[in-house]
Amino acid sequence: MLTLKVELGARSYPIYIGKQLLGDAELLHPYIYGNSAVIVSNETVAPLYLQQVETMLSGIRHTAVILPDGEKYKNLDILNRIYTAMLENHLDRNTTVIALGGGVVGDMAGFAAASYQRGVGFIQIPTTLLSQVDSSVGGKTGVNHALGKNMIGAFYQPRAVIADIHTLHTLPDRELSAGLAEIIKYGLIGNADFFSWLEQNMHALLAKDEAALSYAIEVSCQTKADIVAADERESGKRALLNLGHTFGHAIENAMGYGQWLHGEAIAVGMAMAATMSAQMHTLSQADVQRIDNLLARANLPTRPPADISSEQFLSLMSVDKKVIDGVLRLVLLHGIGNAVVSSDYTPAQLLDAINTTAKNSAEPAMHNSQQDNRHKDHDHA
Amino acid sequence: MLTLKVELGARSYPIYIGKQLLGDAELLHPYIYGNSAVIVSNETVAPLYLQQVETMLSGIRHTAVILPDGEKYKNLDILNRIYTAMLENHLDRNTTVIALGGGVVGDMAGFAAASYQRGVGFIQIPTTLLSQVDSSVGGKTGVNHALGKNMIGAFYQPRAVIADIHTLHTLPDRELSAGLAEIIKYGLIGNADFFSWLEQNMHALLAKDEAALSYAIEVSCQTKADIVAADERESGKRALLNLGHTFGHAIENAMGYGQWLHGEAIAVGMAMAATMSAQMHTLSQADVQRIDNLLARANLPTRPPADISSEQFLSLMSVDKKVIDGVLRLVLLHGIGNAVVSSDYTPAQLLDAINTTAKNSAEPAMHNSQQDNRHKDHDHA
Repeated sequence: MLTLKVELGARSYPIYIGKQLLGDAELLHPYIYGNSAVIVSNETVAPLYLQQVETMLSGIRHTAVILPDGEKYKNLDILNRIYTAMLENHLDRNTTVIALGGGVVGDMAGFAAASYQRGVGFIQIPTTLLSQVDSSVGGKTGVNHALGKNMIGAFYQPRAVIADIHTLHTLPDRELSAGLAEIIKYGLIGNADFFSWLEQNMHALLAKDEAALSYAIEVSCQTKADIVAADERESGKRALLNLGHTFGHAIENAMGYGQWLHGEAIAVGMAMAATMSAQMHTLSQADVQRIDNLLARANLPTRPPADISSEQFLSLMSVDKKVIDGVLRLVLLHGIGNAVVSSDYTPAQLLDAINTTAKNSAEPAMHNSQQDNRHKDHDHA
Repeated sequence: MLTLKVELGARSYPIYIGKQLLGDAELLHPYIYGNSAVIVSNETVAPLYLQQVETMLSGIRHTAVILPDGEKYKNLDILNRIYTAMLENHLDRNTTVIALGGGVVGDMAGFAAASYQRGVGFIQIPTTLLSQVDSSVGGKTGVNHALGKNMIGAFYQPRAVIADIHTLHTLPDRELSAGLAEIIKYGLIGNADFFSWLEQNMHALLAKDEAALSYAIEVSCQTKADIVAADERESGKRALLNLGHTFGHAIENAMGYGQWLHGEAIAVGMAMAATMSAQMHTLSQADVQRIDNLLARANLPTRPPADISSEQFLSLMSVDKKVIDGVLRLVLLHGIGNAVVSSDYTPAQLLDAINTTAKNSAEPAMHNSQQDNRHKDHDHA
């Protein structure tokens, strides 16, 4: 087992990465302060792992809230089910919310923890690659609004993150790829060597090689932990983590939450940011090709859906949280491993980038990844 | 104009108390950081004061969200209207939410500010006595859940509180009395001299004498500011501010939010806490009588509604936020001006206190206050 730490003063917390961490009661108990807990999970993950987490809670009064699975359920109505279950079970201010699942479960459970009785304890047990490398670390919690993704939420740090690599063996390939999108992002924004490592090891990652996954998760979590420690509330450097996200959120919103996985949408977003960077001459065309190739090898789409118009794209991007005083700040690339936050572009340049990527819209990667999912081909290699 | 300060390090903020503060743009502008703002108000207050606040926002892009008036609308559904309006107006992370109204508006606007895009600016402009002396100060925000009051929320401090005494001239007498309940609370929990002052000046307060109101608001805000500075997140001393609230929340919940005003319910709660304290021999019967008399002179009820059974009372009290690991902690009195948080009582003693006050249930004060409201007798003296 490997332990990383997110350094946030009194709110610092550990990230445990390893095998067979689920079921280890001694690992969990120090982070349960009161005499009760609630596990929040979903219909897909609960049948696989709920019992193991319940075993970890022996001696602690606990209950479970099982949500429907999917991004489209990440809203206030479903959130209210968590509050209702907690109140029906008379859980008090000393209780602890445990998120067992992927990013959607973690975001909702985290916001429930942040807001139930104005804040109770929170522990993340991420079971998808995306949540292990990204959403479980850093304290962003919340739900979607019909008019924008993640528009309602809080910065609320967990007491601990427990990432059990073994849970990835039950992860559908399409979701594995979605997680790889965020891993590729860490290479793009600040670590060219890691990007090269990913080019060399994509085959092993897709084959769920444990050593490769463990290394990729470690580098990703360490990168995120360092950035969050430096800028918890995203007033500066943390915005780099949004590479591809403003484009990606527009796709998720336009297509309806849940049609595209978050990782798929931000894969396209990163390809669009790369294209825009190349048109602004801060990234070589060769590097755009490397990025496109790596995303495609991870079975990720690199082109937006053909049915989103440029106008719709611009409109949806303008409600993103990256808008400050009316100016949309984008994360662009000055080379692989060197991302910058910039509002130094013209509307025409943004429109041009949207049109250029949309024009190439062939969706082969997306098509493949959907096929994978239909086949439930769990051993992709 | 008088300025108090809530000392919370980087999150410290001023409370301005005075006349004709509404309309003073120079007072407000330093607390608007971005180039946009949203005013949250209700159907009762907006026709009276919205225009003045809009005048204060000249040069700043602003919009208004007008909510229905009343505690029963303090829920997630109505909260969502605020988010929707903010998104429709493309308000970004640099925006500021301004609460214009009483406690319900302040609680909802505050939680919207805390959670919109994970937190934006917040300013309180309280227009009721209760919100000026209590709810606008200290950062408690949130909404009710069908199963419990204020169960969903956040600690989120405003950037400034602007309390204009002139707004009290349009306040219905019933709501004036509700505010007096919280003012009496400050005397009871820690300031016997102020309690005596209230006994001598209740007539002036009910007559809306500006000097008397100003003094009562100042002492109340200073008391609250000191307690909040010492214990922002209610891990200790701040719990004293809940005198009467656990009993009161049970009444509000049982009667349906909005039937009883919050101040009326906690007036009864304080009378019940006093009765229980007397039965436990920490408060004299003479002091119970002084408390009952002062509450009655403020046109507040002192007995619970006859139709809540003791069992219902106990059940509703057990979901209160004052429950820690299954033990309900009550605020009790060791004399006027000396409140303590205690779990050192038996269930039989609590039941006895509920039965004793309920037995005397005559509701004369409540009856009077409702009559006042029907008559819309705005100049009570």
